[in-house]
Amino acid sequence: MTKGQLLYEGKAKKLYTTEEPNVLLVEYKDSATAFNGEKKEEIEGKGILNNRITSLIFEKLQGNGIASHFVKQLSDTQQLVRKVDIIPIEVVVRNIVAGSLAKRIGLEEGTPLKRPIVEFYYKDDELGDPFITTEHIDILELATSAEVSAIYEKALAINKVLQPIFADVNVTLIDFKLEFGRDADGHVLLADEISPDTCRLWDATTKQKLDKDVFRRDLGNLTEVYTIILSRLGGK
Amino acid sequence: MTKGQLLYEGKAKKLYTTEEPNVLLVEYKDSATAFNGEKKEEIEGKGILNNRITSLIFEKLQGNGIASHFVKQLSDTQQLVRKVDIIPIEVVVRNIVAGSLAKRIGLEEGTPLKRPIVEFYYKDDELGDPFITTEHIDILELATSAEVSAIYEKALAINKVLQPIFADVNVTLIDFKLEFGRDADGHVLLADEISPDTCRLWDATTKQKLDKDVFRRDLGNLTEVYTIILSRLGGK
Ligand SMILES: Nc1ncnc2c1ncn2[C@@H]1O[C@H](COP(=O)(O)OP(=O)(O)OP(=O)(O)O)[C@@H](O)[C@H]1O
Ligand SMILES: Nc1ncnc2c1ncn2[C@@H]1O[C@H](COP(=O)(O)OP(=O)(O)OP(=O)(O)O)[C@@H](O)[C@H]1O
Ligand SMILES: [Mg+2]
Ligand SMILES: [Mg+2]
Repeated sequence: MTKGQLLYEGKAKKLYTTEEPNVLLVEYKDSATAFNGEKKEEIEGKGILNNRITSLIFEKLQGNGIASHFVKQLSDTQQLVRKVDIIPIEVVVRNIVAGSLAKRIGLEEGTPLKRPIVEFYYKDDELGDPFITTEHIDILELATSAEVSAIYEKALAINKVLQPIFADVNVTLIDFKLEFGRDADGHVLLADEISPDTCRLWDATTKQKLDKDVFRRDLGNLTEVYTIILSRLGGK
Repeated sequence: MTKGQLLYEGKAKKLYTTEEPNVLLVEYKDSATAFNGEKKEEIEGKGILNNRITSLIFEKLQGNGIASHFVKQLSDTQQLVRKVDIIPIEVVVRNIVAGSLAKRIGLEEGTPLKRPIVEFYYKDDELGDPFITTEHIDILELATSAEVSAIYEKALAINKVLQPIFADVNVTLIDFKLEFGRDADGHVLLADEISPDTCRLWDATTKQKLDKDVFRRDLGNLTEVYTIILSRLGGK
């Protein structure tokens, strides 16, 4: 497969066409961004790390019966994925209170939730990715109610697979963001990436943050902590 | 019934005990407040208007099979209500886009929704009454899932009764906020008030705002428009 024309350039990745109309080439960039793009930095090696970590995680998910857009890793910074029509909803699964949830409901970061919760955000940069409910999804016709149910069930199933994968390497999966799309047959498929850019990951013993909060909150060296995640997951 | 000791003073009302342990006396104040108390003004006559309008609306609801805490109007500014344990959730029902929903999802004020939606806000002044979902309600143990279902069904049932009551007098019920409590038997009961302070009400023909947005947005004279609502509802 070779790189065709640039289809879309996002903050973290570029999407290219390939010879296969249903397959895209994703190129991970070295940009780190936060707060809807307000904070921005180039960090050498970030693209390689996120491409490898996402590839590893999607492979592990596939091995546990969770289908995704992932086809295969192509190179250090590139992977092939199935093209989908992205559903403009960011799906957040939370096991432990952190980030915006701590602010919203007034519980301290690190407080365990009695059960995982799923939150939906409307993927719209101009509106600042607002927090929405299934009723807003219905009003805006972002997805059908069958799609929302599928997304909800899949999000919790992914959490059930990911939690022990991280726990086994002494990492606590605090929360993570998923995106889903419709494949050529109209089926809901997990897409985008799963990496320390899109998860909160804490060392289970020391509680050290091993994710993008290191960049958001200036807590240390991003590539160092992303490298810890990659190597704990068995990558190199 | 006579006024006992002051139990609670809110921004809009004072609650007093009575001889009856399960009955409270509510006194409507002349204060107008908005934006979590940031904007504040004394408006002579407001207490009388909201006491009368709320009494009228609770009577009409009762006549349509919707139980509430309302016992009876006592005087110009006072009413008797059954004491409940307030569930700390503000329940918003929306028929037409306005206010925070317009900002959240980027639809213009006045856009009709294809069906009414129900939103929940955590009644917590320090947190700024944040928007929450049933999952946050569960996590925070604000209400049981049976209570949330009861609240949801009652909110929509109330909307079904209120919409034609207002439509019949050429007023469009855009949205409104409800509070519910647990009575002595632990049953969920509609409480608090339903008035132009807690509803968005537009003249159906001219679209003139006949509610607290007149105060929030400095659009005119509050008592004038509240008086229009009172008289259209058949009060004086
Ligand atoms: N399989 C796929 N098919 C089509 N688009 C995809 C696929 N997987 C991910 N995408 C989309 O590609 C883009 C990835 O780029 P990136 O993560 O850099 O975007 P971003 O900066 O987060 O911006 P945004 O997500 O707001 O568009 C996202 O818009 C994502 O939804
Ligand atoms: N039947 C009832 N029994 C007990 N409390 C009630 C009842 N009905 C309403 N309340 C409560 O009485 C208070 C009414 O006062 P008011 O509307 O002035 O409060 P507020 O300024 O809105 O403040 P807040 O609602 O944040 O306490 C509210 O806290 C409301 O929840
Ligand atoms: Mg992205
Ligand atoms: Mg109030």
